[in-house]
Amino acid sequence: MSTEADTLLIPGPVILSSKVQRALDVPSLSHTSPEFGAIFQRTLKNTRKLFKADEKEGQPFVIAGSGTLGWDIVGANLIDNNDSALVVSTGVFSEFFAECLELYGANVDKLTAEVGDVVPTEKIREKLKEKNYKLITLTHVDTSTAVLLNVKEIAEIVRQISPETYIIVDGVCSIGCEEFEFKKWGIDYCLTASQKALGAPAGLSISFASQRVVDFVKSDKYKPKSYFTSLKKWLPIMEGYENGTPKYFATPAIQSINSLDAALQEILEDGLEARWTKHAKMSTEFKDKLTKELGLKLVSKYPAESAAHGLTAIYVDEPGKVISHLKAHGVVIAGGIMPSIATKYIRVGHMGVTACDPSVDYIPTCYKLISEAK
Amino acid sequence: MSTEADTLLIPGPVILSSKVQRALDVPSLSHTSPEFGAIFQRTLKNTRKLFKADEKEGQPFVIAGSGTLGWDIVGANLIDNNDSALVVSTGVFSEFFAECLELYGANVDKLTAEVGDVVPTEKIREKLKEKNYKLITLTHVDTSTAVLLNVKEIAEIVRQISPETYIIVDGVCSIGCEEFEFKKWGIDYCLTASQKALGAPAGLSISFASQRVVDFVKSDKYKPKSYFTSLKKWLPIMEGYENGTPKYFATPAIQSINSLDAALQEILEDGLEARWTKHAKMSTEFKDKLTKELGLKLVSKYPAESAAHGLTAIYVDEPGKVISHLKAHGVVIAGGIMPSIATKYIRVGHMGVTACDPSVDYIPTCYKLISEAK
Repeated sequence: MSTEADTLLIPGPVILSSKVQRALDVPSLSHTSPEFGAIFQRTLKNTRKLFKADEKEGQPFVIAGSGTLGWDIVGANLIDNNDSALVVSTGVFSEFFAECLELYGANVDKLTAEVGDVVPTEKIREKLKEKNYKLITLTHVDTSTAVLLNVKEIAEIVRQISPETYIIVDGVCSIGCEEFEFKKWGIDYCLTASQKALGAPAGLSISFASQRVVDFVKSDKYKPKSYFTSLKKWLPIMEGYENGTPKYFATPAIQSINSLDAALQEILEDGLEARWTKHAKMSTEFKDKLTKELGLKLVSKYPAESAAHGLTAIYVDEPGKVISHLKAHGVVIAGGIMPSIATKYIRVGHMGVTACDPSVDYIPTCYKLISEAK
Repeated sequence: MSTEADTLLIPGPVILSSKVQRALDVPSLSHTSPEFGAIFQRTLKNTRKLFKADEKEGQPFVIAGSGTLGWDIVGANLIDNNDSALVVSTGVFSEFFAECLELYGANVDKLTAEVGDVVPTEKIREKLKEKNYKLITLTHVDTSTAVLLNVKEIAEIVRQISPETYIIVDGVCSIGCEEFEFKKWGIDYCLTASQKALGAPAGLSISFASQRVVDFVKSDKYKPKSYFTSLKKWLPIMEGYENGTPKYFATPAIQSINSLDAALQEILEDGLEARWTKHAKMSTEFKDKLTKELGLKLVSKYPAESAAHGLTAIYVDEPGKVISHLKAHGVVIAGGIMPSIATKYIRVGHMGVTACDPSVDYIPTCYKLISEAK
């Protein structure tokens, strides 16, 4: 692998800070040693802060895997055969989540937004009144469309109409860059991954379960459908590491967790709210220039309310040409993946270092290159 | 994390070579880029060589996870409700595998060896004649007892008596340090993990499926029970990366795979057979000194035939005292985990660098410290 890396501006994996990257280059430690125990303990305690969860209730989980593993945890632990699930779909990642729940036996009702749009809250309200849903899934930011959901508002509606429904948030492309309040908003499970706005290397699934999910997992009613993602297996492990008493179920990814520890410390030292603001500022400025100066059109129909702040999805006439031009100048962005518009837009990620380190000018450079090639 | 690390001599995670460790400290790459594609392609091709599998048939899988994930892949992909499975059990890891299969609905028959012993092949023969088993699991080396199975011989018996039975090998503590021939021995699925004899960082599940498993996964009969470990999902991804056409199901762990790539290159440059020999030599010398000079007794009852070469499990009067003495001198070993003898023995890992780098003297140092404290 060359050390002269391209500037990576895809919506994850993202550029690592030098501190986070160097934190990978450490010797292996025993997974049950006090030394690693202290690292993992701090990581879990900071994961609580990252999700803005209760200091004591609920449980964070950090498991070798990816964002995809988070969907599996939901399906394998919370879905019984023929349980009803409501999926609010704003792109392909919402659809994948639905597919995962169906594999575990869920009857999935989907509320599918038009491309670039959100689902009107009125429709969600209606559905919740019609049927008892075991859970509802909200893809906070769907990375295929860069559409941002108003999770706070939808969660309030769910808690009002159907308080027993578990509120599940896919925060893969939102945690660390979008406002998110696990406790205040009454979320039941939120999943994310290491390689996006947390600015850590890919390879870890990071999630948080509410106390009522924890209580369910500890109850007689609970029956996991998978071994590796059984929360019953992971609960004592994560409780153990968080309490300073390491336990074994599967060998944790020592170096990746050490790097995540560094990434979470950077985020919390910077201030979580300050990070949200930095991402929003960079995103808004970039989107404004692309639309106003270059006359381009965002995939998100209502940028002010429902455009993600960690990436930009924007229509261009010739995506291939734009991507190639940027690549020729050492900048890597992503193409479209939403099937109906896949060949018509590009995606630029601006999470982590790119949005938060004032010494880098990746997005201005990217903008200049897009303006040359669009 | 201190850079003045202890000498880590547990049976995984193991000490990384400086090249393997440094290979973690690299910038993120796009998971679908040609640059990462080339790294992952080479990794998969070398994984084939590692397992001594066919050059074209069957399929290697490298997935963010751990050894535990490998059991899940077997259960979720190969077990239908009420399928019969035969588990040859030589320790707690064999038992965990059985537990995983049961979660997926298998009726498990166990042939449990006495502590430190193997299961007589006659008993395996009898069982296979009694019933049709969907699969048999063989824990090549059970890390709890350091007992080594004669996989070659057992596989031959299975293919003779019950050729339709899938032969599954847990090679977590054997691949890279014990003789293993996927193709010649007619294995159907072998799972391992990155952090043991491969000398790579923890965080990756590495496995190989035979062509008949691949054909089954592609057939109409196949129905996965898990989303994240569905081989139907992973098959096109791994085929894609191996063919040079990256595809997406879950974001791969870029840096971990780059490090595994370095580790596999080191193994293959050294020569796989040469590595087996080095592990065997170090193991035999260490065990001989412990038994003959110090008068200690191995957990493995028949060292010549069935003692693992990647770790040593040996009885000592006061394991706590020995472990503390070594730790005080900067050497970390492991305690017992086989319940019936847990407080009576210690485990010393000698995989990877420790066995193969002639410039290090970790095991002689460890031996000296044990001799002082035993």
